[in-house]
Amino acid sequence: MNPDILKERRNATFDVEKLTFILYEGPEKTKRRREIESLVLNDPDFAEEDPNFLSRSERYDQAVRKSAQMILKLREYGIADPEEIYFYKSSVHPGRSEPLDLHLGMFLPTLLNQATPEQMDRFFMPAWNLEIIGTYAQTEMGHGTHLRGLETTATYDPSTQEFVLNSPTITSIKWWPGALGKTSNHAVVLAQLYTQGNCHGLHAFIVQLRDMDTHNPLPGIVVGDIGPKFGFSEVDNGFLKLDNVRIPRENMLMKYAKVEPDGSYLKPPSAKLTYGTMVFIRSLIVGQSAISLAKSCTIAIRYSTVRHQSEIRSGEPEPQILDYQTQQYKLFPLLATAYAFTFVGQYMSQTYNRISGDINQGDFNELPELHALSAGLKAFTTWKTNSGIEVCRMSCGGHGYSRSSALPDIYAEFTPTCTYEGENTVMMLQTARYLLKSYRQAKAGQQLSGIVSYLNEMEQRQVQAHPASARPTVVDINDLSNLVECYKQRAATLVELAARSIQQELQKRRSQEDAWNNSAIDLVRASDAHCHFVVVKLFTEKLSEIGDTAIHAVVSNLALLYALHGITQSSGDFLQAGLLTGPQMLQISVRIKELLCQLRPNAVALVDAFDFHDKKLNSVLGRYDGNVYENLFDWARRSPLNATEVHESFHKYLKPLRSKL
Amino acid sequence: MNPDILKERRNATFDVEKLTFILYEGPEKTKRRREIESLVLNDPDFAEEDPNFLSRSERYDQAVRKSAQMILKLREYGIADPEEIYFYKSSVHPGRSEPLDLHLGMFLPTLLNQATPEQMDRFFMPAWNLEIIGTYAQTEMGHGTHLRGLETTATYDPSTQEFVLNSPTITSIKWWPGALGKTSNHAVVLAQLYTQGNCHGLHAFIVQLRDMDTHNPLPGIVVGDIGPKFGFSEVDNGFLKLDNVRIPRENMLMKYAKVEPDGSYLKPPSAKLTYGTMVFIRSLIVGQSAISLAKSCTIAIRYSTVRHQSEIRSGEPEPQILDYQTQQYKLFPLLATAYAFTFVGQYMSQTYNRISGDINQGDFNELPELHALSAGLKAFTTWKTNSGIEVCRMSCGGHGYSRSSALPDIYAEFTPTCTYEGENTVMMLQTARYLLKSYRQAKAGQQLSGIVSYLNEMEQRQVQAHPASARPTVVDINDLSNLVECYKQRAATLVELAARSIQQELQKRRSQEDAWNNSAIDLVRASDAHCHFVVVKLFTEKLSEIGDTAIHAVVSNLALLYALHGITQSSGDFLQAGLLTGPQMLQISVRIKELLCQLRPNAVALVDAFDFHDKKLNSVLGRYDGNVYENLFDWARRSPLNATEVHESFHKYLKPLRSKL
Repeated sequence: MNPDILKERRNATFDVEKLTFILYEGPEKTKRRREIESLVLNDPDFAEEDPNFLSRSERYDQAVRKSAQMILKLREYGIADPEEIYFYKSSVHPGRSEPLDLHLGMFLPTLLNQATPEQMDRFFMPAWNLEIIGTYAQTEMGHGTHLRGLETTATYDPSTQEFVLNSPTITSIKWWPGALGKTSNHAVVLAQLYTQGNCHGLHAFIVQLRDMDTHNPLPGIVVGDIGPKFGFSEVDNGFLKLDNVRIPRENMLMKYAKVEPDGSYLKPPSAKLTYGTMVFIRSLIVGQSAISLAKSCTIAIRYSTVRHQSEIRSGEPEPQILDYQTQQYKLFPLLATAYAFTFVGQYMSQTYNRISGDINQGDFNELPELHALSAGLKAFTTWKTNSGIEVCRMSCGGHGYSRSSALPDIYAEFTPTCTYEGENTVMMLQTARYLLKSYRQAKAGQQLSGIVSYLNEMEQRQVQAHPASARPTVVDINDLSNLVECYKQRAATLVELAARSIQQELQKRRSQEDAWNNSAIDLVRASDAHCHFVVVKLFTEKLSEIGDTAIHAVVSNLALLYALHGITQSSGDFLQAGLLTGPQMLQISVRIKELLCQLRPNAVALVDAFDFHDKKLNSVLGRYDGNVYENLFDWARRSPLNATEVHESFHKYLKPLRSKL
Repeated sequence: MNPDILKERRNATFDVEKLTFILYEGPEKTKRRREIESLVLNDPDFAEEDPNFLSRSERYDQAVRKSAQMILKLREYGIADPEEIYFYKSSVHPGRSEPLDLHLGMFLPTLLNQATPEQMDRFFMPAWNLEIIGTYAQTEMGHGTHLRGLETTATYDPSTQEFVLNSPTITSIKWWPGALGKTSNHAVVLAQLYTQGNCHGLHAFIVQLRDMDTHNPLPGIVVGDIGPKFGFSEVDNGFLKLDNVRIPRENMLMKYAKVEPDGSYLKPPSAKLTYGTMVFIRSLIVGQSAISLAKSCTIAIRYSTVRHQSEIRSGEPEPQILDYQTQQYKLFPLLATAYAFTFVGQYMSQTYNRISGDINQGDFNELPELHALSAGLKAFTTWKTNSGIEVCRMSCGGHGYSRSSALPDIYAEFTPTCTYEGENTVMMLQTARYLLKSYRQAKAGQQLSGIVSYLNEMEQRQVQAHPASARPTVVDINDLSNLVECYKQRAATLVELAARSIQQELQKRRSQEDAWNNSAIDLVRASDAHCHFVVVKLFTEKLSEIGDTAIHAVVSNLALLYALHGITQSSGDFLQAGLLTGPQMLQISVRIKELLCQLRPNAVALVDAFDFHDKKLNSVLGRYDGNVYENLFDWARRSPLNATEVHESFHKYLKPLRSKL
């Protein structure tokens, strides 16, 4: 082990293993996760070439091979619990999406949720046994977020009792669905249903795309890969153009809505069930944000203790770069954020599980708040993580730019979460819609429940445009509950500002819709402040669950750093609303520097607690043993450009050039 | 042409061509640039496959082929002016670095600057004729920014009159130099010079790496490619391990320092000349920031006029996404930034050219300020551009993530500028050192010259911790000169805060060095504010040079948006220093929204003025004609995974899986 990193671990003031149990919801769960990981990581059938050394086609090929192995082994070991499958999968394809994700995560669940018993008989077992490999084809080239805009049509022909599917325009071509390009032979296709001359909106249809034996596309089907992307090189995101493709009436998923043989249409009873799935997926993304940011912090902080550079005191040896205040200031607030998001992810999944029982029994009471919260937090956490990964990468200097650091891959694989499952700005505006509705209810004297109930407190209060120097300032900047209160009032102030902007627009005789659009900047800002408040609140509340004194001390410092750093990043909001004063801002700056010093000895232990196996981290810079340089050299020598001493281009182009000049 | 984008162009209120001339320093220069570009873009010898469809080795191969062609054609056309070579090269390799960059940009200039006449005879013509292909090997695996830390040794052996070069440790292996891996047969190697038992610090040595005929590495030389990176796939950044490699004494570059045959050492007369080169390169990077951000804005803004999504008013057709206030708020401040950085880049190169005459005559008077400014502005502009490119990419929704958008490549190729040629945080601290020195001189009553002279004004003034409600607020938020003044005072305030932090640390009996490190956050913040002030100032000053009324109006709006948006992003600074009040902040938010509306009709014209040829932009989303969707489909169908209808992995893994389940 590298002596620097060994020294760091010796300096830690707490028991790392105990903190790991807090981060992974108990020792039992942690142990089981490690068991499953070691099943994969010690299995030679999952040995792989570093994908960074492969061509796109080779990457896809390797991923398909491993996914096929994975299916066999999951059955062999009898692993069936969704969370355990997730642990297994994320060890087989560490940090990467894979070609069967859509089959397992969307196609099978869609059958379970929306197929009739007859359809289950026809499709489920073949799909379970990977004869049918399916995907979920919703997004089109010209249409993403706005589902009503989708153009693909399914027109019922009663004479043959078939649906005729078409892509009427170039923009209607299905575009982006994972595994659509090469892997799948079936798809759930979302299309506008036409029958008896009427359009009934989007419905789901099972469409066979390829021959079961030869895998060739069927007549009327133009299908393929959409080409290379920033990341996601293992996945064949695809396109699908449908030209008068006929499927039997029975291939429309008819558990809820129905088309009778004569073409008459029966409406579904409720649409709220899909609503629950969206909430679930967005809550998962919050947890994924935490993992991606935690990985990035692990790499950057470990490397920063091994790397020595420049000098603080002249004549002395080059210090570890983590001893620079600027490096601590880049990384420790992100470390605190990774902890915050971990706890927020726990809260979201617990809350979802708690109320999903109610949902299944038709009680949708708590769903609107969770829906609004999951939309905003999905946006809030993915945006922060997205920029945070890049700060981590750049904090590793040049070596962070090498694929060996893993940081470019973490970024390229993570960044689509800002766009998919609801584009982030749209998500923030959804949350804002809920906040504004709640605000108006509070104004009307209604008592709100849940997290937004703070809007009741604002009822009489006016937005403080001038810092209210008359009001006594009672904020103790070291008291987290005081800071939670500050964040709350900031959120309330910004919700009120957004409401006022809409009001002013309406007074200028703009329509409701234009008033909304002309206030969108304020609305996003209000949502952001609301989410920030929720995160600080949940982080603070988590502290009361931590019994171990040493761990409580260090995690409290992280929470305080998170809260104070957030204030300095939006100091104008807090000053403008009169919640904090200029002198307090100066105190906060000083306190942040103290916290950086206090956290410094525990930095490595705090990332060790995330418990990422080296093979899952897959980063030369972030190795547990800190032996960075030897392994960087080994890695480079294995890279494909070094397969020969002399690249053929020398003989083809450079040597012949001499005689021509 | 797409009708949406046609309509945009018809709505423009100014003559695009005239603005292009302002951005490219006159009609003559613009015309010449276009001539050179069309020489390349119409030349079938430079036809290429989209690099995104190629493997790493194929990308390198294609780049070497094109670079060799480029050398031949530059000679054929007699293009020799450095700027014209740059235009030519950036058309041959649009947006990408290439394998001969280091030979042309570092190896040949180093010979010109540091070789003796005898060395010029031996090396220059062979290098000019590409027999010798060289690179510049400075950075080591363990050492980047801190040059004194480099470990490679060159020990003089008087018995044979040779230097013996060694890489004594793993961290001393040369790492990162472009073209070192595969392309070069020579390198300028930076090494610690030892002679007669003394170390004389870093000197430059010409080392032959590979056999001139076979291109095989010579004995004692271990050389290769450092492996795949985030971007820079065309360049063979390399490693070099030296094991007792002997070179003749005459291969030390001895124009300034010398080692005599007996081993006695003669010092160089001055070190300031290399100082000038750094300033030059950092000034260039400011201009490159402008180009990368301008390209990203061009793509995102054109696409945002072609893309329709969701609804503002229910029942109406889906609006262009550029009509959403949130989209304008993402893109227009970045557009303003691209304009700002273009003008700052012009200023930097003009200033450099103005004073480089003085430098050559030994007059270094203005160099320290330009050096400090170029360091800070390099960091300021690259950081803003780096995050700005990603905002542009994400503003294009899912399609921004496709390599066809070009945005992933623009980002991956640009982001190293935050690290190379001086890591950004280190750069900010260099600028801070100059600011603090100037501040102390001002305190001591010295009259400062140049941009920092504003620090004299602060001499008596105390930092206003409380918003000074007594002071009359005279700021007109629509008056750019008022805003420049605000930025100036903010910078002065933050310089003073940093100085005070150092003072407080010293009072706690910390050493100067520790006081500096413990104030580094404040120092970076002060430099950032200083650079921001300079950018706002230069943008404002540029307006006076614009004679055309229509153009003046629209560019003034951009400048105002740039200044006001910057204030809102750091509103705490302005409030805390008592420079602006809460009500003014609210006015600024309203004014920003108005400016977004005012700029909206000219958005496409403003990016058209950057005059990027479609082939240089290389983006399906950013096409001049707006025909995005058809071309996206064409591009995808050409991608390698679509070379066959059925990928071989189906037959290898997926079909066999059926019988096993």
